[in-house]
Amino acid sequence: MLSSLRVRNIVWKQASLIKRSYNASAQLPDLTKDRYQVKRGDYSQVTDADVGFFQSILENSRVLLDESDTQSYNIDFMKSVRGFSRVVLKPKTTEEVSGILRYCNDRKLAVCPQGGNTGLVGGSVPVFDEIVVSTQLMNRIDNIDELSGTLECQSGCILEQLEQAVSEKGLCMPLDLGAKGSCHIGGNVSTNAGGIRLLRYGNLHGSVLGVEAVKADGTVLDLMSNFKKDNTGYHLKHMFIGSEGTLGFLTKVSIFCPTASRAINVAFLGLESYDAVLKTFLAAKRDLGEILSSCEMIDQEALDCSLNAFNLRSPITPFPFYMLVETSGSNGAHDEEKLNYFLETSMNNGLIQDGTVTNNPTKIKDIWALREQIGAAILRDGYCFKYDISLPLPQFYEIVDIMKKRLGNQARRICGYGHLGDANLHLNISSSEYSADLHKQIEPFVYEHTSTLRGSISAEHGIGFMKTKYLKLSKNQQAIDLMGEVKRMMDPNGILNPYKVLPRL
Amino acid sequence: MLSSLRVRNIVWKQASLIKRSYNASAQLPDLTKDRYQVKRGDYSQVTDADVGFFQSILENSRVLLDESDTQSYNIDFMKSVRGFSRVVLKPKTTEEVSGILRYCNDRKLAVCPQGGNTGLVGGSVPVFDEIVVSTQLMNRIDNIDELSGTLECQSGCILEQLEQAVSEKGLCMPLDLGAKGSCHIGGNVSTNAGGIRLLRYGNLHGSVLGVEAVKADGTVLDLMSNFKKDNTGYHLKHMFIGSEGTLGFLTKVSIFCPTASRAINVAFLGLESYDAVLKTFLAAKRDLGEILSSCEMIDQEALDCSLNAFNLRSPITPFPFYMLVETSGSNGAHDEEKLNYFLETSMNNGLIQDGTVTNNPTKIKDIWALREQIGAAILRDGYCFKYDISLPLPQFYEIVDIMKKRLGNQARRICGYGHLGDANLHLNISSSEYSADLHKQIEPFVYEHTSTLRGSISAEHGIGFMKTKYLKLSKNQQAIDLMGEVKRMMDPNGILNPYKVLPRL
Repeated sequence: MLSSLRVRNIVWKQASLIKRSYNASAQLPDLTKDRYQVKRGDYSQVTDADVGFFQSILENSRVLLDESDTQSYNIDFMKSVRGFSRVVLKPKTTEEVSGILRYCNDRKLAVCPQGGNTGLVGGSVPVFDEIVVSTQLMNRIDNIDELSGTLECQSGCILEQLEQAVSEKGLCMPLDLGAKGSCHIGGNVSTNAGGIRLLRYGNLHGSVLGVEAVKADGTVLDLMSNFKKDNTGYHLKHMFIGSEGTLGFLTKVSIFCPTASRAINVAFLGLESYDAVLKTFLAAKRDLGEILSSCEMIDQEALDCSLNAFNLRSPITPFPFYMLVETSGSNGAHDEEKLNYFLETSMNNGLIQDGTVTNNPTKIKDIWALREQIGAAILRDGYCFKYDISLPLPQFYEIVDIMKKRLGNQARRICGYGHLGDANLHLNISSSEYSADLHKQIEPFVYEHTSTLRGSISAEHGIGFMKTKYLKLSKNQQAIDLMGEVKRMMDPNGILNPYKVLPRL
Repeated sequence: MLSSLRVRNIVWKQASLIKRSYNASAQLPDLTKDRYQVKRGDYSQVTDADVGFFQSILENSRVLLDESDTQSYNIDFMKSVRGFSRVVLKPKTTEEVSGILRYCNDRKLAVCPQGGNTGLVGGSVPVFDEIVVSTQLMNRIDNIDELSGTLECQSGCILEQLEQAVSEKGLCMPLDLGAKGSCHIGGNVSTNAGGIRLLRYGNLHGSVLGVEAVKADGTVLDLMSNFKKDNTGYHLKHMFIGSEGTLGFLTKVSIFCPTASRAINVAFLGLESYDAVLKTFLAAKRDLGEILSSCEMIDQEALDCSLNAFNLRSPITPFPFYMLVETSGSNGAHDEEKLNYFLETSMNNGLIQDGTVTNNPTKIKDIWALREQIGAAILRDGYCFKYDISLPLPQFYEIVDIMKKRLGNQARRICGYGHLGDANLHLNISSSEYSADLHKQIEPFVYEHTSTLRGSISAEHGIGFMKTKYLKLSKNQQAIDLMGEVKRMMDPNGILNPYKVLPRL
């Protein structure tokens, strides 16, 4: 039925070691405070007495002091920012977190909450000497209820491990993202992480049923719930979803997990133009309806980068644009029929030029790897300016061409890919090393362009440290003022993740 | 294929006049302040000068002063509470709302925001003489974007009219509820209304893309967005979703509207026991997967009430329990195949005893009417104590039997129905008139029972005026304290919807 669409017998190269090899190779980034000329807040310095206190409530092995131990907690995954915390704490329980925060608040010691440290905007590492409080050891799954589809767990559970656990009960996690192998669910919730299933299951404000959070003063807020419907007073949990650890420290979450799909299909398609991409998306929405679970776009430059960096092979010949369309449903035969109809009509209409489609789990994983490894691949160019923006679909891709024209050969690579189905573009601009000059050519231009189109300057990565000064391009002054009020109410001493999210004065 | 399942040619009686006939019949309820012995807050009294100010910013026709005009704004749909506001204002624009609130805040005049006044917990009418600010004339649709599936409109648009408007663009509203013919979208968002599509599309925290709200001091907060992904700073819009008008006055909303389903099927089933209901729900989740859009349960007593009150006829013979299972999908043939498989296996397994299934839009509407009119039907008994609770599914129905045993023949009718798929039960207990004695037999017992099972004492109706004193059974003290802090931050003079949501001292 699929005329020229076919699954080729290519040898897919596993790329599981990518992150590790990357981590070992690059050199230390500049200290954030120097590169960005940040002024330290009026916080206390950590003393031996403070360390003694922490050792009194945690075992010594969970108070890291040695620079060789603390270094990786001071540098982000992108190696774009670096702090110099000398203390990393690894609580196991809510009570320990509460004890730590109460003490830090009284002593006015700044704290940097950290999950899997996979964030892309410098939100998860210290800027100065903030005490890192890691959720690494808070990885207990408390309950999985198959009947109601709920998961309760501590905030340090790794997303991929949760996916594994709920899948054994016939459920799936409502989010999935490239960093799933190391990101923590607490970090996901704190950053309102999006990812590749958002199109299908919506964002975490919809999926998180409850949270337990510790306030800056150590108060434990138990807002856990296992119900999809609970209209009893203010919906306080949302304060902690997407506030990037600046309003509280997440210790537990309860998440609604949909029934796992029995049938998954992935099509990888080649197209001639962005116009064809857009029309194919509309056709996919129409023809695939409720089984459409992802709709991703990748430009040629982005795919080439991923292929070259990790010596992968594309399942189809080169095209200016690619799409990855995933379906998931409860009936494989029905899904294939819908997918075949969509592919045939889109090929007959001249929208799709070439493609491959598969329901083989290994091949599906390999196709997804082509998409998910672009981010890591581009880092191999040396340095990468990464933008994660929401744009109206008609203007979704034009920023890539605008930047190519604007930067000429000053950049090593300019490419675009992302979650087309959610109007979320990842614009990547690489160079052999960080260049302040190139930086100025790109910012604030990209953000201003996005703002002019009423888009979002951070679709899913958050504001973190990197984007605070551009916040005003996506939020008006009244909203920023209210953010400030909320912060002062929740954390009057400003100890939680300072220099992040809110504009620095 | 459907063995004993069949669509019968019955004459369905239209019930469009139900609400009107109800409204005309009942007598005035007691004044809330007397029945519940509430103490008036320290607010100013409305003077002639105040009225003059309101008339200066609105036309005279939009300042209602005559008791015959204001009375309906003072009484809730349930006729369970009554205030005595002498001023009802009908702004058309955000600027007018801002002007009204700024003035009221300066003068310390209390305000009761009101949408369609269809709430069931007394949240939408004044308790004393609060000025009613109605969204009735704020009913402009600003934009419907088919490509991204977004709707932008003012807060006074009626849900059913929005459904009509977006359906013309191939979209649907992500919520649907019995009061759709008169409820306002602003009220829906303010109360985080649930309804019958929540199972499929999730709650409004997931679907609302942006809001515009006016703060108590008149500040306009523009938090509008048309994007599903926007992680730029605190997710402030959620403060206004479900806070029942106590933190701000919603003036505009932007909502994500999914693609409308091309095929809709409804099955109405008869079952012998709650155990069979629960097993049938699990089978529906498994067999219908992504096309399951509603799963409702109705007990015999509830259906009988609806049938008798409006002289309707059931499409099947009497059973102790009924289920209404709806599918919606993009391919009618596939959906029917899935539904047939589900029905056949469930009948063969002895779970379903009898049933009817239809894809005829009129018959679908009529089947839904059986379910949706239960609430109005029970009011005909005289007075009804209504409970809207989330409970763990294994214990979902037992409260009905517990109450029957507890109350014996003190109650006229005790029945249960609701959104089984969301673990949300509507427990209704009727009597010929309000009885304080019966009230005490029921409350706090029902809420304490719910709390013991860690359920929610208000799954979808909110806290409003009626449930403030039981809030502590669903929220702990730390959460209630934080609610108070949020209220003081947003509305230091406490002018917005006083005596609601927060516990009264």
